[in-house]
Amino acid sequence: MTENLRTHKDLNLVPFVSVDHMMRLIHRIGIEKMMTGIAAYIEADFSRWESFDKTARIASHSDKGVIELMPTSDGKLYGFKYVNGHPKNMKEGLQTVTAFGVLSEVYTGYPVLFSEMTILTALRTAATSAVAAKYLARDDSRCMAIIGNGAQSEFQALAFKALLGIDRLRLYDIDPAATAKCKLNLSDCGFEITCCDSAAAAVAGADIITTVTADKRNATILTDDMIVSGVHINAVGGDCPGKTEVDREILLRAEIFVEYPPQTRIEGDIQQLPADYPVNELWTFIRDEQQGRTEREQITLFDSVGFAIEDFSALRYVRDQLGKPGMSDLCEDLDLIADPDEPRDLYGMVQRNASVSIAA
Amino acid sequence: MTENLRTHKDLNLVPFVSVDHMMRLIHRIGIEKMMTGIAAYIEADFSRWESFDKTARIASHSDKGVIELMPTSDGKLYGFKYVNGHPKNMKEGLQTVTAFGVLSEVYTGYPVLFSEMTILTALRTAATSAVAAKYLARDDSRCMAIIGNGAQSEFQALAFKALLGIDRLRLYDIDPAATAKCKLNLSDCGFEITCCDSAAAAVAGADIITTVTADKRNATILTDDMIVSGVHINAVGGDCPGKTEVDREILLRAEIFVEYPPQTRIEGDIQQLPADYPVNELWTFIRDEQQGRTEREQITLFDSVGFAIEDFSALRYVRDQLGKPGMSDLCEDLDLIADPDEPRDLYGMVQRNASVSIAA
Repeated sequence: MTENLRTHKDLNLVPFVSVDHMMRLIHRIGIEKMMTGIAAYIEADFSRWESFDKTARIASHSDKGVIELMPTSDGKLYGFKYVNGHPKNMKEGLQTVTAFGVLSEVYTGYPVLFSEMTILTALRTAATSAVAAKYLARDDSRCMAIIGNGAQSEFQALAFKALLGIDRLRLYDIDPAATAKCKLNLSDCGFEITCCDSAAAAVAGADIITTVTADKRNATILTDDMIVSGVHINAVGGDCPGKTEVDREILLRAEIFVEYPPQTRIEGDIQQLPADYPVNELWTFIRDEQQGRTEREQITLFDSVGFAIEDFSALRYVRDQLGKPGMSDLCEDLDLIADPDEPRDLYGMVQRNASVSIAA
Repeated sequence: MTENLRTHKDLNLVPFVSVDHMMRLIHRIGIEKMMTGIAAYIEADFSRWESFDKTARIASHSDKGVIELMPTSDGKLYGFKYVNGHPKNMKEGLQTVTAFGVLSEVYTGYPVLFSEMTILTALRTAATSAVAAKYLARDDSRCMAIIGNGAQSEFQALAFKALLGIDRLRLYDIDPAATAKCKLNLSDCGFEITCCDSAAAAVAGADIITTVTADKRNATILTDDMIVSGVHINAVGGDCPGKTEVDREILLRAEIFVEYPPQTRIEGDIQQLPADYPVNELWTFIRDEQQGRTEREQITLFDSVGFAIEDFSALRYVRDQLGKPGMSDLCEDLDLIADPDEPRDLYGMVQRNASVSIAA
């Protein structure tokens, strides 16, 4: 009976990682080490791609932005993320992207982790980009241009430093204040940083070009004449219908790599191309530990939109960290699941609560 | 600036209604009054059916059960529910169905309510059944049979009492302990209760027949010979592929009413019928305040599976109650949304937290 009650207690209380908890987790582990850890979970999960239920995310669009649900399951765990994308939010002092997510046990259907994911999404997006670049960028890459110096930019820089050894940054944003903020935030991280006054200036000499702008429109951040052979393009910002960053001509010159084609063809920069245009699936290279880049002079492009498995990996990573000694203070228990002692007696549980409620 | 900070504070903290809060809300309002209130919200939302984004729920099936996401939006608010269905859970001392849900503001994409929904789903399911019966059952209905006396049964009884004046119950479950539990729980609620030893005995003389069993298989809870003319069947338990309760012959004799045909044809009892079999949409009768039953001798059947708009209505109802004077103690603020003062400075917010974390 005691055992039974303990099991009930465990299942009806769901560990919750708040924003504050997540920040403390990052500092306790170290942000570069944490992104490296998440990257390893993403690689492990992409390597068993066929184990997952895969579905394009379920989007609810309005003229102000989009709200999406991103579910997946490997048959043992089920995960989903809620995420919004509201480019207009920034001008109102709000985040463009906020998110939270849940991991559940497939066997019972009970949630086992509820977590903030605004910060965690920033980490996993950067980790995914760096994983892709490991397979796609030239081995001697040292210098990265970052076009768009908003909320995601520093995370990209640090993930590429941790996983690829990038130590030179060339920053550009249409708002110089964003560039100044990015430079200041990264000033003690071991980068040589150059602030540039145009996208063209930023990409000059870069081995890797990261585009991570937030406008919800078909913008042309990169034009064909900026792109020299041998470069890797990490195109992060073009991630919903009508929102692209890269000129179509560049797409036609590049070898294109994507997370999950059915979703990327709708949301990614390749929405500019025919629906049957050949693209490569990142997971196949990760699983076979095989370089995606075949020639030094090749232009490679990772058309990042963000896929549910990456969130699943990030949540799985967080859950595993919380289980380690000394980490249990990084979450709190939420009274989320009604779980009467006799499962068919939900009404009785509510009814018995009446005396407590009235007394309170 | 103070104003701005207050706005930030309001948005980054999300009101959370725990299981305990929900039970106290029910007792403060009164369960029958609360179901009547939720029913009114459901009627109001079904009356503006065309305002809603509608999609069949997104299900992840395993051999143990199903986990589903149920999103909808009216353009101003967005809502979704997470819900599982694991019939095998009951034998392990767990709930068959657990749920939680979120309401968000479409304008910002920020969540504005996070709530337990295991109990709330029980209320809204019963409220929806009673709303349907208002339009479909004979006006002089007094006696309801309930086949399946599990977690949903008492809520059904009380909703039908509150909305239709049902005051006689005929209970049957394959497990007499479930019937005894249901009878005991309802003993002070003003019903005349008869416990029956078969489904056939329970339906004899009933004006309304509610089937609410939990087996995940094609069961035949009701057979054709049990059904007399003039009865209303509230078929609640057949709600996923391969899970039905009502004999096909009964479906062919009855006038069938459903929530959202594309979902019900997959999940409801009508999965036994051809995909183009004519059914009536409940919302059209609610909007026009028009009886669905046209003849006293007619057999009507509500093939309930549960639709996202009902959860949206229930969450909206809860949110409005929390806004009333004296109700603010029925939720707590969750630190769920990372919201730096400068929206593009998410990394800076994390970085500035380092000193706090290390000191802690």
